[in-house]
This record gives sequence, structure tokens and C-alpha cells, in this order.
Amino acid sequence: MSEALQQYQARCQARVDAALQALLQAPLGELERLYAAMRYSVVNGGKRVRPLLVYAACEALGGQAAQADAGACAVELIHAYSLVHDDLPAMDDDDLRRGQPTTHRAFDEAAAILAGDGLQSLAFAVLADAAHNPQPAELRLQMVAELARAAGPAGMVGGQAIDLGAVGVQLDQAGLELMHRHKTGALIEASVCLGALASGQAGAEQLQALQRYAAAIGLAFQVQDDILDVESDTATLGKTQGKDQAHDKPTYPALLGLAGAKAYAASLCDEALQALAAFSGEADALRELARYIIARRH
Amino acid sequence: MSEALQQYQARCQARVDAALQALLQAPLGELERLYAAMRYSVVNGGKRVRPLLVYAACEALGGQAAQADAGACAVELIHAYSLVHDDLPAMDDDDLRRGQPTTHRAFDEAAAILAGDGLQSLAFAVLADAAHNPQPAELRLQMVAELARAAGPAGMVGGQAIDLGAVGVQLDQAGLELMHRHKTGALIEASVCLGALASGQAGAEQLQALQRYAAAIGLAFQVQDDILDVESDTATLGKTQGKDQAHDKPTYPALLGLAGAKAYAASLCDEALQALAAFSGEADALRELARYIIARRH
Repeated sequence: MSEALQQYQARCQARVDAALQALLQAPLGELERLYAAMRYSVVNGGKRVRPLLVYAACEALGGQAAQADAGACAVELIHAYSLVHDDLPAMDDDDLRRGQPTTHRAFDEAAAILAGDGLQSLAFAVLADAAHNPQPAELRLQMVAELARAAGPAGMVGGQAIDLGAVGVQLDQAGLELMHRHKTGALIEASVCLGALASGQAGAEQLQALQRYAAAIGLAFQVQDDILDVESDTATLGKTQGKDQAHDKPTYPALLGLAGAKAYAASLCDEALQALAAFSGEADALRELARYIIARRH
Repeated sequence: MSEALQQYQARCQARVDAALQALLQAPLGELERLYAAMRYSVVNGGKRVRPLLVYAACEALGGQAAQADAGACAVELIHAYSLVHDDLPAMDDDDLRRGQPTTHRAFDEAAAILAGDGLQSLAFAVLADAAHNPQPAELRLQMVAELARAAGPAGMVGGQAIDLGAVGVQLDQAGLELMHRHKTGALIEASVCLGALASGQAGAEQLQALQRYAAAIGLAFQVQDDILDVESDTATLGKTQGKDQAHDKPTYPALLGLAGAKAYAASLCDEALQALAAFSGEADALRELARYIIARRH
């Protein structure tokens, strides 16, 4: 990660972490364990890539970081809830996440189900609330609609369903991309869209360009993840290496070969940069992130 | 149920069932199984008490039923998702719901988790979308905010967490009511509030009165449920009888005695009717529902 991007990432992470902490305080002693499970699921040292996209898209259109706080929290709350539920025994059955016990391991399964459910509600609450999201009503509403669509059954949840249905099935590249576009792409696109909306200055053409950017980096992120899954060992990645292949899930290296997958990731990065051609230097954080996604080692 | 309420209930049920069916069509063949699990969880012959409250509150303030469709769908989607997740093995571990296999029994656990997650997103999507909810942006946003608060960790999800934490614990009446106010009361209050907002004509005083009404019937509903749990047998109720007592959960008959519980339910019904004193005959459906809640046998 370039030094500039590293600084930008640290700044975004600090902002969103502070805002998330404030959101996750139990209003009542009886709710303390539930809120503790939600905090555990959210406050975990994550790099906050999706919040970074919200901030960077907002600033690319001339907005201020403070305008993007609610959107940044909302996408991270949705992302965190999806990880908690994906890790459950009935789903991917993972014991570790970033080297720490998953929520259902640290608490219990019921607490993990409820923490996930509560995090999802909270994402919409923070977007709808003027105290957290000081935008005109029409913009807040567009943000809610976009996130609900992206997180829902025709978006992220649908992608997880397609993924679970694909275990042991020979997906072709089109099938694999359909799955990724839903499972991870939808929320990445929503992150950029929420940031753009939060700026209060997004035109239709700019939204389209940012959406093209987001679709390309979302896919690049997946291709690179598959590459790293082949190349890295468990210690570096913090999750069990080779897990996707072991479960007979399709991967880009399996479909295109390792060199082919790397070339594809590079072409997606170019596509992302191309989509930003009409933007000024204010979009440099978005540009650097696109380059980082395919250069990262974990 | 009086004939008038029966007709009103049937009309509301038909409206909301048609709207829910339309919402639950898979946009893509790959998502068919997920949507099938969501439809199974929602389209189940339920009486649609919460949608009825949305319609009745809207009409009590002079609104039209069509204005309340989105709110009616949204509260039922939240209610349905909560039942799917509550029935999971890690939660209440129920095999039957209304005499039919629960969603994780009819499909599988992963499908049930995802169906619930998707139903929650869909609830917010339908409220935010002008095509489904033709209200001014400010009102739609208030509806999203109210539902997100009521469904979330400080509302329904929090109530389920308190309930799970209370198994084997001797709750007193205040503790029991705290649990119910969160677990079921919050969504019942939100139903009435969403209906009132959907009318476009809710003043602050009317909202407060309706909220008092909703709090009273929400609690009455629980007290009556506990009474029925003691009195009914499995066949009538469609769930395993005496289950709450068997799990050592506190109940109103256990706390107040059966006669005391019945007197309490009646006083809550009076309280609900009192809250509606300033309303015209347009609030009669709400009044009849309050009477029905404590008179019902299942």
C-alpha cells in the first residue's frame, strides 16, 4: 500500500471506528451481552475497505468526510453482519476470522444470529436518522433504498445463496461472476454509491462512472482473493489456506490458470482507472485503492 | 372474532398477501430457491395481525388502505424473518410453526438463515421505494427510521436476546414486561405508527394516543398467549403446549395466577380502548381488535 493510501486508510478507519463504537453502546443493562456480541463482530481491527470507498467516493465529488460517516457505518454494519452469519456452523462453519474466534465461538450461536440481525437493522437506522446522517430527506432515502437493494436477496444475500448452491457444482466463468457480483460486488457498488450520494453533488453520469469503477474493483478484489488463496499460507491470510479449492468451490485460478487470473485482475484494475478518467485529483484515493487491490499480498 | 372484524381481517389479509406475493418473485433463476424459502416463510396463512394494525391505524386517521400497503408488507416481512430465525436449532429449536415444518426443516438451516436475512432487507427496501410506498420522502424516511428502531437491537432483536438470557432465571413482572415490550411490543407499536404515518395526517397527539393503544394491546396479546399456553392443547394451538413453562420461562399465569392474568389482560384491553377515546368510528377496527385479542381461543 502506498504511503498516501496508507494514511488515507488510517484516517478513514479512525473515523468510522469512532462512529461505530458510539453506535454500539447498549441503551440498557439487559441488552449488554447482545451489544457486546455486536461490538465484537464489528470492532475487530478490520481495514474498513467499504467505509474507505464511501469516504473516497464522497470526497471525489467534493464532499466532506463528515457527510460520509453514516454511509461508512452502514456499509460496515452490513458487511460485519454478513460475516457473522456466513461463519455460522450451518453456513461456512468457520472458527476463526482474522485469527480470532468467530462470534458464535466467542459467544454462542444464538447470540451470533441475533447480533447479525441487530447489525443489519442498525445499518438502516443510522442512514435514516438525521442526527447521524445530516442529508436532505430525499438523499437519505436514496441511500436506504440503495443499501437495502444491495444487501438483500437480489444482492448480497442472494450471492451467498448462489455460493452455497454452487458447492460441488462446476460453475463456468459467467456463473462465478454472477455469484461474486451478488455476494461481494453489490455491497462494494453500494459503498461507492452511498459516498457519492452523501456528497450531495452526484450527477447521473458521475454515478454511472463510479458504478463502473466499483464493479471492476469488486471483481478484481475477488480474483485477487482467489489468487492469494492459492499462493498464501494460513499464517499470512489468517484463514485456512486452500479452503475454497478444498470445498470444491470454483476459483479464477482454476478456471483461467494462475497467470490468466493475474492478467484478468490487471485488466479489471485498468477498467476501474478508465472509469475515473473524467475525475480530478480528488479521486486519487479511489485510483490508489484500485491499484492496491491487485497488488496486495493478504 | 366479530363478523365485522372478521371481514376487515380478511380484506387486510388479502391485500397484504397479494402485495407480499408480488415482492417475493425471484428476479433470476439462480435465486429461485432463496426466494422459495422466503415465500415459504411469509406465505403461510397467517392472520396478519400486524398488517391489520397498519391498515386500521391508517384508516383511523382518514387514510386509504392503498397508502398502507408498503407499511403492512414491511412489518409482516420483519415479523416473518424473526419467526424463521427464532425457530432455528440454536434458538428455540422448533420443528413446527402453524402445524407446518419450520423453514429450516422444510429447506435447511443455511437457507433459513439467509431467507430471514433477505426478508429483513426487503422490509426496508419496500418502505424506501416510492413505487411501493407513494408517500412524501420525509414520511417514508420516518417509516424506515421507526421500523429500524423497532426491529433492531434496542427493539425486537433485543427482546429475543433478553428472552434467551431469561431461560432458567426468575424474572419478576417488571423483567417479564421489559422482555415483552422489546420482543413483541416494539413491532406492534411500529405497526400502528407506520399506519398512522402512512395516512399522511398523523398529529403528535394522535401518534401518542395510538402508541399507548399499541403498548396496551401488545402486552395484552402476550398475557393472553401465556393464558392460552396453559389452557390449550397442542392440537388447537399448532405448537407444543406448555412449552414456555417446560423451558422454565416466566409467564403471567405463573406470576399472577390464572385469574390474576385474566384480570390483567382485561385491564390492558380497557387501557387500549381508553387511549382511543378521542377517535371517531373510523377507529372501530382498532377497538374490535383490542377486544378480540383477549377473547381469542388460539
